[in-house]
Amino acid sequence: MSFKVTILGSSGAMPAYGRHPSAQLVEIQNRHFLVDCGEGAQMQLMRLDISHHRIGHIFISHLHGDHYLGLMGLIFTMHLQRRTNDLHIYSHRGLDEIITTQLRYSRSSPSFKIIFHRLEKGERKIIFEDDALTVETIPLQHKIRCSGFLFREKPKPRRIDKTRLPEGLLIQQIASLKRGDDVVDEQGNILYKNTDLTLSPRKSRSYAYCSDTAFQETIADQIRGIDMLYHEATFANDEILKARDTLHSTAAQAAQLATLAGVSKLLLGHFSARYKDLTPILEEAKPIFANTHLALEGEEFKLQE
Amino acid sequence: MSFKVTILGSSGAMPAYGRHPSAQLVEIQNRHFLVDCGEGAQMQLMRLDISHHRIGHIFISHLHGDHYLGLMGLIFTMHLQRRTNDLHIYSHRGLDEIITTQLRYSRSSPSFKIIFHRLEKGERKIIFEDDALTVETIPLQHKIRCSGFLFREKPKPRRIDKTRLPEGLLIQQIASLKRGDDVVDEQGNILYKNTDLTLSPRKSRSYAYCSDTAFQETIADQIRGIDMLYHEATFANDEILKARDTLHSTAAQAAQLATLAGVSKLLLGHFSARYKDLTPILEEAKPIFANTHLALEGEEFKLQE
Repeated sequence: MSFKVTILGSSGAMPAYGRHPSAQLVEIQNRHFLVDCGEGAQMQLMRLDISHHRIGHIFISHLHGDHYLGLMGLIFTMHLQRRTNDLHIYSHRGLDEIITTQLRYSRSSPSFKIIFHRLEKGERKIIFEDDALTVETIPLQHKIRCSGFLFREKPKPRRIDKTRLPEGLLIQQIASLKRGDDVVDEQGNILYKNTDLTLSPRKSRSYAYCSDTAFQETIADQIRGIDMLYHEATFANDEILKARDTLHSTAAQAAQLATLAGVSKLLLGHFSARYKDLTPILEEAKPIFANTHLALEGEEFKLQE
Repeated sequence: MSFKVTILGSSGAMPAYGRHPSAQLVEIQNRHFLVDCGEGAQMQLMRLDISHHRIGHIFISHLHGDHYLGLMGLIFTMHLQRRTNDLHIYSHRGLDEIITTQLRYSRSSPSFKIIFHRLEKGERKIIFEDDALTVETIPLQHKIRCSGFLFREKPKPRRIDKTRLPEGLLIQQIASLKRGDDVVDEQGNILYKNTDLTLSPRKSRSYAYCSDTAFQETIADQIRGIDMLYHEATFANDEILKARDTLHSTAAQAAQLATLAGVSKLLLGHFSARYKDLTPILEEAKPIFANTHLALEGEEFKLQE
């Protein structure tokens, strides 16, 4: 089953050198989530031949323009293409007013329902849950209310070992094997022990999006051991004071956090317009955390089961 | 002196096939005006290596998203680049609220002053004037309040014929020649007749932007004889009923208006996403008005003096 992050934008506050403002598509087991939606996100989706029709939930980290200004255009396009499915938008306070004001002046009444979910400052909370996964907010430290998002697959069923499965088992019996139970008869006697017929479940994968934020050790507790972390690296170390003043992070700090949290893979993004060449950003992070990658437009990062 | 229109976006309501929403830069005698500002306009400016620093006045035709959604991103970028010059924005009611709401939630206080000028429904009025030109609104017929913009150079001074200019004339005397006066002595006696020393003024050029609008003959009266008309051609004739219902125009209708108004050149834009190939749009217009051009991204249309 899929677990894939596709980068739509890697730029910081200003677009530069063909880099676009923050946006990424997170696909987990055929569920499609948009995380941040900077200006031009709908054009980036088109360019990458990704349909927006399957996006049901959009998570906006904070209300700086480079993280949400593409949302209104996407909503208008969804409306023009006669979307009918509900659209859930998760954001700190204000985005509902920003969107409804614009709908009012354009005299548009979308063809679908928009359901706003308000995020609260400093809160660590599960804001989305279904059969397969949860999405949890990560409190970030920035100039305005800002949240990261932690995507976690739920524990998966045990896998049936087809090479050892006897013939004639009922569907209910197979379901109980997947849940980890033994197969029993009506009197409760064990017919087959679970461990004889099943293999351990597939791994539950996890991904965290942390942007924008100052370096903050407390994040490490929440994301400990996850498979993949996207962390902003607006600056390199040459601008560490600027990073501190603007509540952003350096590439080295992102790598330190990845190390502290013991994650498996680190993606860097939200690059300042002052860096045309991003090699110094990557080279600053790699000695601290080797499995680091630049999260550039169009790149896909897949997690194996 | 320059008179140039650079196309930043040629697309209708939805971006498609690499075409961007409406925006264009109008440069007249080193004044830089932005007309409409669809999503991604700032990226288009960057791509075309056009600085936004010199844009002082932005004219927004109406509050459908494809005509203004790039404005907020441009404003944020101007702020981040520490603009200090005033920015004048001309729009129908609502845009001031849309912008100030977003500034409020992002806790941004721009480094420059934004001055809003409200356009009124159905009004034909000079909304900008300086030494060199005027900008006048053109009432358009669309689903919401919508105005076109007519740029007209003012009459220009007579040109000094340097081959016939006697030596020793004072600056004030040359200025009076440029105004069309004779050179006289203190008693009012004519020393040199104006027509002996000057040539006729350079042509005053004119350009009209008409988008979005249904076909409307009354526009022709206001733009009669202008040098260049940009008129929306959202549809071709195969969709004439759709054009009527949505208060848009076909390519043939745009060409008819150009003919009725006796303009010199016609630019077509605001193409529907249903047309991948725009040849049929151009071919529909040309038999009606020969000097028709597709206004595509990156193209420059210059008017000679």
